[in-house]
Amino acid sequence: MAASLLRGGHEVHGFDVNAKATERFRASGGSSGEMAQIAGALDAVVVVVLNAPQTETVLFGEGGVVAGLSSGSVVLACATVPPEFARRMEAQCAEAGVLYIDAPISGGSVKAAAGKLSVLASGAPEAFEAAAPVLEACAETVFRLGDAAGAGSAMKAVNQLLAGVHIAAMAEAMTFGMTQGISPEDFVKVIPLCAGTSWMLENRAPHIVDGDYTPRSAVDIWSKDLGIVLDIARGAKFGAPLTAAALQQFVAASGSGFGREDDAAVAKVYARNAGLTLPGDE
Amino acid sequence: MAASLLRGGHEVHGFDVNAKATERFRASGGSSGEMAQIAGALDAVVVVVLNAPQTETVLFGEGGVVAGLSSGSVVLACATVPPEFARRMEAQCAEAGVLYIDAPISGGSVKAAAGKLSVLASGAPEAFEAAAPVLEACAETVFRLGDAAGAGSAMKAVNQLLAGVHIAAMAEAMTFGMTQGISPEDFVKVIPLCAGTSWMLENRAPHIVDGDYTPRSAVDIWSKDLGIVLDIARGAKFGAPLTAAALQQFVAASGSGFGREDDAAVAKVYARNAGLTLPGDE
Repeated sequence: MAASLLRGGHEVHGFDVNAKATERFRASGGSSGEMAQIAGALDAVVVVVLNAPQTETVLFGEGGVVAGLSSGSVVLACATVPPEFARRMEAQCAEAGVLYIDAPISGGSVKAAAGKLSVLASGAPEAFEAAAPVLEACAETVFRLGDAAGAGSAMKAVNQLLAGVHIAAMAEAMTFGMTQGISPEDFVKVIPLCAGTSWMLENRAPHIVDGDYTPRSAVDIWSKDLGIVLDIARGAKFGAPLTAAALQQFVAASGSGFGREDDAAVAKVYARNAGLTLPGDE
Repeated sequence: MAASLLRGGHEVHGFDVNAKATERFRASGGSSGEMAQIAGALDAVVVVVLNAPQTETVLFGEGGVVAGLSSGSVVLACATVPPEFARRMEAQCAEAGVLYIDAPISGGSVKAAAGKLSVLASGAPEAFEAAAPVLEACAETVFRLGDAAGAGSAMKAVNQLLAGVHIAAMAEAMTFGMTQGISPEDFVKVIPLCAGTSWMLENRAPHIVDGDYTPRSAVDIWSKDLGIVLDIARGAKFGAPLTAAALQQFVAASGSGFGREDDAAVAKVYARNAGLTLPGDE
């Protein structure tokens, strides 16, 4: 996203706990340094971290950026977080005179690098106005879901519920088919043309056929995001049995050592439990 | 399917336990009567019933059709059945000199009426040759999955697993979203453009928005088909936790009196458990 902003002609400061990422960014023309020191010069802050605690640390922790931001600047918070947390961040930013966009992103690292993310955004109209140049540089599609923080994170949670369940369902169906003599290759040829298809199935099932678990999106992302979904659901007294079942499969994949592999590796749990050999396995 | 065959210029005999369906068929130019009496004159028999026991009754029960069929005629068996059952039917037909296509169908009653079904078919080359005029009249797409019965039913089971899980996941996600302030209307506007979409979601979610549970495909179809999938899976010592969770939701919908409603009515179970009111509800 920082690279997309650079390409969009903006002056961009990049920060990452990974020093190599910061170096790479500087080599491509960006700046870096201590957030707190340059905060006053920023029009917008884009926070792309793992979860709610990290978001809060960046904004309000020791050396947090909000304390130094000018009035009228805008924070775009992109992590998957509970809607309730997004509302609290918006309120705390408002106390500091800072605008806030609840802006979870969808599309993964490939679309992020191309400036073609989808953003499930909500926030005050003046926050959208301040954030417009950033959104224009980073996003292909901006869903504007409401005038206050929370709606963006809620829709993101809904999308992650479905996406995670669909990846696990794909793995369940493909390996079930293998027990009945359906090869992964035939599965990928036929099912995308049938009513059983999903976006995630069409995107991830080929990884299993190729035996390629290079992480486009990792198993651990789903242990995290489906966990967030279930936390939100429990708070709302909402029972989500499919989400719970899918989470257990991702947790088992993670516990089996596949946490940093592509999320299609959840199929390895099914295969091992059923004594099946996936493509590319010994 | 019988009507499609009539439109295709074939002489067609129709049989249904529902006398009204038979009458309607006769009114549109078809014939009817006792199967066993006209069996000898038939080139092909298309069996579109609920499940394996009904298929076996039609073929080999009292007054069953196979005993009267001429050598070289072909049976197309279209119900969702275990692959093992399809192989047994093929073998029993072969003993009577009758060809057999394992031919489960996909597309529902709307596509069936239009002669635009998808057929997940497997069987001997000579069986396909004999069945070609029937498939041409009834199907838009014929997936030819192998030279023996079983593969067609296996792929159908794989597709039903996914389709059933995706309908329940859609209901789970939409009602979860409602607890977070996402309206069903916004869900249907946004999610089909995101990675969380599925064919079933795009097809069924609008039924909930419209509060229209006219059965295009009924809840009870999924109690049946996911049950068949889990029977096959247990036989193969294959654990299918998402399928099992989805089945329970359809069973609860059926037990709540929604069995004959559109399968999107599985959302009513989620809504009631969470104290939500769906569109069209009092």
